[in-house]
Amino acid sequence: MEEPAATPQAPSERTRVRRLPRRAAYDRATIDAILDEGLVCHLAFVAGGQPYAIPTAYARIGDHLYVHGSAASRMLEAAAGAPVCFTVTLLDGLVLARSAFHHSMNYRSVVVLGAAEEVEDESERLAAMRALVERVAPGRWDEIRPPSAQELKATTILRLAVAESSAKVRTGPPIDDDEDLALPVWAGVVPLALTRGAPLADSPRRDLT
Amino acid sequence: MEEPAATPQAPSERTRVRRLPRRAAYDRATIDAILDEGLVCHLAFVAGGQPYAIPTAYARIGDHLYVHGSAASRMLEAAAGAPVCFTVTLLDGLVLARSAFHHSMNYRSVVVLGAAEEVEDESERLAAMRALVERVAPGRWDEIRPPSAQELKATTILRLAVAESSAKVRTGPPIDDDEDLALPVWAGVVPLALTRGAPLADSPRRDLT
Repeated sequence: MEEPAATPQAPSERTRVRRLPRRAAYDRATIDAILDEGLVCHLAFVAGGQPYAIPTAYARIGDHLYVHGSAASRMLEAAAGAPVCFTVTLLDGLVLARSAFHHSMNYRSVVVLGAAEEVEDESERLAAMRALVERVAPGRWDEIRPPSAQELKATTILRLAVAESSAKVRTGPPIDDDEDLALPVWAGVVPLALTRGAPLADSPRRDLT
Repeated sequence: MEEPAATPQAPSERTRVRRLPRRAAYDRATIDAILDEGLVCHLAFVAGGQPYAIPTAYARIGDHLYVHGSAASRMLEAAAGAPVCFTVTLLDGLVLARSAFHHSMNYRSVVVLGAAEEVEDESERLAAMRALVERVAPGRWDEIRPPSAQELKATTILRLAVAESSAKVRTGPPIDDDEDLALPVWAGVVPLALTRGAPLADSPRRDLT
């Protein structure tokens, strides 16, 4: 007889999802789809014994994630060469159950652990900057003014391998206890989505407005 | 002569916004408004020398933030009694500038530092659970089945004082260099908002569907 379908394997014990493991996924297709939809990550690092989680833009190129910022950034200074946690969370819905206990949210999240490293290679730095622009507005890089030598010097870029990562996904309706199903209260899901509104054009010459 | 308007004062050196301090706010009205609009925080803590940032629901009651989870949660175990960073980020827009360098995002974020403590008092625990439900669906607590003794036992609640906190806010159009303003490229803001869709009612008896 064949074994039952194997439980998905986490790349490491510390990325193994222990709470509600049925929500876990470790395959790169699932992980990459979440990473490529999110617009902001939270980058956790330790400075002076204190953990911080700071929101920042990011881009993925293949097996690496890139974040960037000012060369004077406290976050980038503390994260370079140090263990970090890179987390992306997409909210998909409020899950309203018939009991307080089973209220939940539908979401897709990815956690990536590893050591962030500063990118020194100039072509990789430019590729990361390009990816950061292109992911929010495809085709835009070729239309805008590229970074000057001074701007490049003022920018630090860190990268992190996607390797040690896990996804956690909840979808679907509330899971109520059987004995609560007849309670006279509305239950279901309120969908959530991050939506783009109509673009607001900047005045091309602010000094004339 | 009067002094010029003072720079806003951070509650601590480690919550003082150093990058782009003009975006900083330290007043509780600004901070509370962001905390009360967000649906999920990222809670950063350290376990085994590794920082983690884990998304979780939360609620504010006055001067405290509450998160909850399974009594078996690795996050809650590592965070209880330990220094944490509680971060809420609201994305308001993509800021498309005429140069790569000035691309940005409009956002409102709050960072709260402190030691999380487990809540033991039963009335405070119930108040926190109520707040967690009421903030996503006002009036709902009185309609649903309240937590049973067993569910209460299975739930850990942590609280964190809002005291050591800061907000960072970016609004408005791209800030391009003067010499880029005439470039023939669209520039402006694409608004972003987390929107609620039409509620999807759960089938009241799943075994009949």
